[in-house]
Amino acid sequence: MSASPPDFDASIAADLLGRLRRKSPRVHCITNAVAQQFTANVLLALGAIPSMTIAPEEVASFAAGADALLVNLGTLDDTRRAAIPKALEAAKTAGKPFVLDPVFVNRSSVRCSYAQDLLTASPTVLRSNREELAALYPGQEPLEFLSGTSVTLAMTGAEDVISGQGGTLRLANGHPLLARVTATGCAGGAVIAAFLSVSDDPVQAAAGALTVFNVAGEMAATRARGPGTLVPELLDALYVIDEGQIAERLKRV
Amino acid sequence: MSASPPDFDASIAADLLGRLRRKSPRVHCITNAVAQQFTANVLLALGAIPSMTIAPEEVASFAAGADALLVNLGTLDDTRRAAIPKALEAAKTAGKPFVLDPVFVNRSSVRCSYAQDLLTASPTVLRSNREELAALYPGQEPLEFLSGTSVTLAMTGAEDVISGQGGTLRLANGHPLLARVTATGCAGGAVIAAFLSVSDDPVQAAAGALTVFNVAGEMAATRARGPGTLVPELLDALYVIDEGQIAERLKRV
Amino acid sequence: MSASPPDFDASIAADLLGRLRRKSPRVHCITNAVAQQFTANVLLALGAIPSMTIAPEEVASFAAGADALLVNLGTLDDTRRAAIPKALEAAKTAGKPFVLDPVFVNRSSVRCSYAQDLLTASPTVLRSNREELAALYPGQEPLEFLSGTSVTLAMTGAEDVISGQGGTLRLANGHPLLARVTATGCAGGAVIAAFLSVSDDPVQAAAGALTVFNVAGEMAATRARGPGTLVPELLDALYVIDEGQIAERLKRV
Repeated sequence: MSASPPDFDASIAADLLGRLRRKSPRVHCITNAVAQQFTANVLLALGAIPSMTIAPEEVASFAAGADALLVNLGTLDDTRRAAIPKALEAAKTAGKPFVLDPVFVNRSSVRCSYAQDLLTASPTVLRSNREELAALYPGQEPLEFLSGTSVTLAMTGAEDVISGQGGTLRLANGHPLLARVTATGCAGGAVIAAFLSVSDDPVQAAAGALTVFNVAGEMAATRARGPGTLVPELLDALYVIDEGQIAERLKRV
Repeated sequence: MSASPPDFDASIAADLLGRLRRKSPRVHCITNAVAQQFTANVLLALGAIPSMTIAPEEVASFAAGADALLVNLGTLDDTRRAAIPKALEAAKTAGKPFVLDPVFVNRSSVRCSYAQDLLTASPTVLRSNREELAALYPGQEPLEFLSGTSVTLAMTGAEDVISGQGGTLRLANGHPLLARVTATGCAGGAVIAAFLSVSDDPVQAAAGALTVFNVAGEMAATRARGPGTLVPELLDALYVIDEGQIAERLKRV
Repeated sequence: MSASPPDFDASIAADLLGRLRRKSPRVHCITNAVAQQFTANVLLALGAIPSMTIAPEEVASFAAGADALLVNLGTLDDTRRAAIPKALEAAKTAGKPFVLDPVFVNRSSVRCSYAQDLLTASPTVLRSNREELAALYPGQEPLEFLSGTSVTLAMTGAEDVISGQGGTLRLANGHPLLARVTATGCAGGAVIAAFLSVSDDPVQAAAGALTVFNVAGEMAATRARGPGTLVPELLDALYVIDEGQIAERLKRV
């Protein structure tokens, strides 16, 4: 890792967001059944074009035609297990970035083994929380085990840590109410995939994605009265968020 | 096709809507995983009763007991492939109308072939956009390839074209924000199925359904601040929309 | 059944709700594809932690680690059929309560037979409406067929009847608009499961769960303009509901 911290500020986040809105990238998402609708709506609100099929027969066509791929391991049934390798191969062949989100691997050893196998395919970004990382790499320190690899880690929590070949960034945006809505973390993984399609720097892309998502969450929380009204407000905020709002709220720590 | 344009105005749309609300038709939907919840809520807001199972073992019972069937090809996995022929056969035997929505056939040749096979079952209405139709009928003109068949085409876009044995209608309602919410098009297909259950004229039924859905979308857009708040506002608008609101906004072109 | 009616009032409901919020119980839900997202959001708004996988390979781990299990028979495909016995066995072995919700068994004889088999596993609570019960126990009276068993019946409708070894309770909260939103009944089953994890009295747990859910529905209906705005308002109400609001609205009949 580089000695100096990576460049990242509101103008970089806003520049990536602007590129995303102009490009309207296609993001193919193999994600869990609970997150599919919300993830699609998050991507559409931002200006990306989601596709969500998990059918093994057709997933390669969708992944090959997409600008980025999300593989989220929630509700990991046989259909998803059969689809994931096909989608990964298509994305790799097409040279497209992919995000791995090993949801709840700390709750199922079968799922954890599956995720460990997938890590050998070198995701562009591994999005995960501390508990899931402890299951994936037992006894190891999160910032150590991926150093020297091409994988960028986006470890989410009250503080988000993004670490890769470009260095390590710490961010502290977000709102507690986001944890009271299902699939906000999963949707954040899809936003990282969308940002990867407009950047060659995975650390900046992941930081930009989490900043935009979490600042939109803070904006939404100022209008919401609870987790129910937070959802429409969050999607509205993703639709309108701009550099001024990012600059006002960005918390780099 | 008939020489004179088909009868269609706000009172016809409102009359069909009134019949739908009095009848509370059952609409069975084989639809994609992303659209299932929103489609069910759209049908309930209008006054129809949705059922959504895709299990091959039980789908025939549901389709046979329903007043109309929607077959939407999004997220076309093995279970859906096995369910669709059983549901179609049950609907045909029971003499019930069915809508085919070949979502994203332009993105997967496997899905496109499957859709072409289904067209031989003569859907009452084929709901599709221009890109999907170009994949289904390469090199042919949309208003030509179904002429002489019993299939009514509902080609959706900024302008909707509805064309069948009753003639051709062009409508221009809707709002750009609808495209920033997932499954609005898919839900529109379910609304066409619901309207088919209260009309013997597929052109009027499809026109009535798209008019009610798109005018409700315009009503919602006047209250929404973005794609997030549009969703609850759209469902509320479908719940209250009446002839006056349809008459005020209907755009026949 | 006991001669005197069971103890139940606003303070009992609020006490269970307080325990739930302090414990943050894990509730594993095998539920239908239409209900998954809304059910997860209802549980999160209340303070419980949902998990929703239906994959047979991993469902036992999730069910064993959960504090309660919901088995809802909507969209009963092969994957769900394979997962349910594994989840039930894990929950039974771990001594955890489970709720059975035999959605729409009156619409499919295959599903009805499957539900009848599951009843031999003695759910802690059977949540069902009158039409579904008539299909499950043809020709029998709802309050009779489970008497003498360990199963508590929560029969929902305009009036909810909760009946078990602790006696029989009748409640009349709720709002007609709840029936115009998909999966409100299904989510109610998950709330019963969450309440079972903080009570040894299934009648009180089911009554507390339905009271909290239905009173929150009434609170939401005072703010909503239709079924669309009802959803975020309902989730907000579940997040804030307290003993005063329950006491003000509780209708025991």
